[in-house]
Amino acid sequence: MKIDELGEFGLIDRIQRGLPAPGSDVIVGIGHDVAVLRATAEHVWLATCDVQMEGAHFLRDAIAPRDLGRKALAINLSDIAATGGAPRFALVSLGLLNALEVEFIDQLYAGMRAEAKIFGVDIVGGNISRSRLGVFIDIFLLGDAPRENILLRAGARAGDQILVTGTLGDAAAGVALMLGRSNAAPLQTTDEYAAIARARRDTPTPRVREGQLIGSAHTAMAMLDISDGLASDLGHICERSGVGARVLAEKLPVADENRTLARAARGDEFAFALYGGEDYELLFTAPAASAEALAEQITRETSTRVSIIGEILPASEGRQLVLPDARVVPLQARGWDHFRD
Amino acid sequence: MKIDELGEFGLIDRIQRGLPAPGSDVIVGIGHDVAVLRATAEHVWLATCDVQMEGAHFLRDAIAPRDLGRKALAINLSDIAATGGAPRFALVSLGLLNALEVEFIDQLYAGMRAEAKIFGVDIVGGNISRSRLGVFIDIFLLGDAPRENILLRAGARAGDQILVTGTLGDAAAGVALMLGRSNAAPLQTTDEYAAIARARRDTPTPRVREGQLIGSAHTAMAMLDISDGLASDLGHICERSGVGARVLAEKLPVADENRTLARAARGDEFAFALYGGEDYELLFTAPAASAEALAEQITRETSTRVSIIGEILPASEGRQLVLPDARVVPLQARGWDHFRD
Repeated sequence: MKIDELGEFGLIDRIQRGLPAPGSDVIVGIGHDVAVLRATAEHVWLATCDVQMEGAHFLRDAIAPRDLGRKALAINLSDIAATGGAPRFALVSLGLLNALEVEFIDQLYAGMRAEAKIFGVDIVGGNISRSRLGVFIDIFLLGDAPRENILLRAGARAGDQILVTGTLGDAAAGVALMLGRSNAAPLQTTDEYAAIARARRDTPTPRVREGQLIGSAHTAMAMLDISDGLASDLGHICERSGVGARVLAEKLPVADENRTLARAARGDEFAFALYGGEDYELLFTAPAASAEALAEQITRETSTRVSIIGEILPASEGRQLVLPDARVVPLQARGWDHFRD
Repeated sequence: MKIDELGEFGLIDRIQRGLPAPGSDVIVGIGHDVAVLRATAEHVWLATCDVQMEGAHFLRDAIAPRDLGRKALAINLSDIAATGGAPRFALVSLGLLNALEVEFIDQLYAGMRAEAKIFGVDIVGGNISRSRLGVFIDIFLLGDAPRENILLRAGARAGDQILVTGTLGDAAAGVALMLGRSNAAPLQTTDEYAAIARARRDTPTPRVREGQLIGSAHTAMAMLDISDGLASDLGHICERSGVGARVLAEKLPVADENRTLARAARGDEFAFALYGGEDYELLFTAPAASAEALAEQITRETSTRVSIIGEILPASEGRQLVLPDARVVPLQARGWDHFRD
């Protein structure tokens, strides 16, 4: 069997099943975005890694190297943010082509340094290898947190409200606008929204401060960052928590321009918001009694918009999407799969 | 300027110069094989990463995937070993081709699992990405240690003895024998030594237990693992410690078969031992008064041979190699450079 027949999640399951039970200091191990490791009785270390690879994640002539550096770190920061922890130390493993200009590396590091500075991260090491095959930037990020602050995909309960930071679908619109340039009938939008969409695509903002507020509030139940698209990532929370969910399309934080573009590109105004990927917003749940206060606290302290977009249901009710015309349709997890796109 | 003009170490220097001073919890940061991070007043975390990339570090049809998995973890274990610390947790970042057989991943992980089990490491996470560019296995390894046990490249002092575990040059002989198969006049050796050389090339043994003994003995002054060849790596100790060195060729732990092969392949019987690379033995220094006792302790407790191969000199005396005929020649660092080989 080839790995593209098994798919990314099938492969991860297969790897996970083969591993022995980890030692007692491993609180959360393989199969999650972030490993949670016991440091002391009250404190944990967090460890994650994510790569940006030429040809798979970026085209070298389509993103500025400085933006690529920022993004490579940002996607890791987003994973730590989604646990409620603080990012601390980064190792950077680079695969480089001989013929690259040194200026490319200078700019790549300028981007990583800028992003590291914003979020209080030290770049403490790494590795440089020649790659005959294209550039990759593989970042290993360590964080820490009080153990009681940590949130995982598991933990959501029926009756919880579903919350999301920021807006959805803009990065996907940014990709569509980039790819659409060469199409016969290119996608049209305002210059202002095109700039927003491009920025969300190339320099996503990890919700680090927001994640720490959510973790330290001790009212949220489950959290992750949206990297594969809301529908797919909410599916991960449902699977791990053993619950269902209802999402109200009208409550989704989606720009009007995004809906227009999604309708033109995919025939579905919510396609980018639900299935787009690379939003790097936080998706979390909290009991109805505290959800609104938590949303208001985050917005007050960070100026980041927080939307309540639906409710966690018992598993038996499945995953539902309520359309603007009140029709209820299944919320299908049509997210990104690296081996099947 | 292209990066191959700058070279690997020039590039690392350039990156290092650009970074701001790290926070106070970073005891050892960028520019070392391993980052040393303050955990508590007496305890440190260790973090390192190293990659095996198709086309640069391995040829997929020339190494069994199980051996590749073992080796990818072993080279990281070796870095932690060289600090005197204990390896604890690994994250595995894989770049995979769609057309790979699942069996390849099964075997790769079987190798990593076996190696992890030997050295008490938990595989706690990672990442899987599609790579159009070939397979890579990028491993991030975390370790820990009492702070007082940690050894670095810096710290060697004139008068220290230079010690090395195991034997040198066998992995380089293994590579030469593999590449030599297709030559007009293939290299010849005994079947027994060919098997040793192949094993050293494909499944190096990280000296984890030896490193912890050296660290906890508190008599050694500096240490690293030999990955680029003895001459180059001893050069790193000299540079960081601000010292010179004299190595006695006759004291080098080199198999007779290795000398014969090196003479045939390179016209220099010590070429594989001095410049070969991928030995993954520990190179360390200790004051003359304690060096022999330390060597004996390691051999007694681990059965691993330890050789005293020379002496640290003042920087003004440079780096010298004493040949078997008593001639003294400069010990040139002709190690491996990823961008210049």
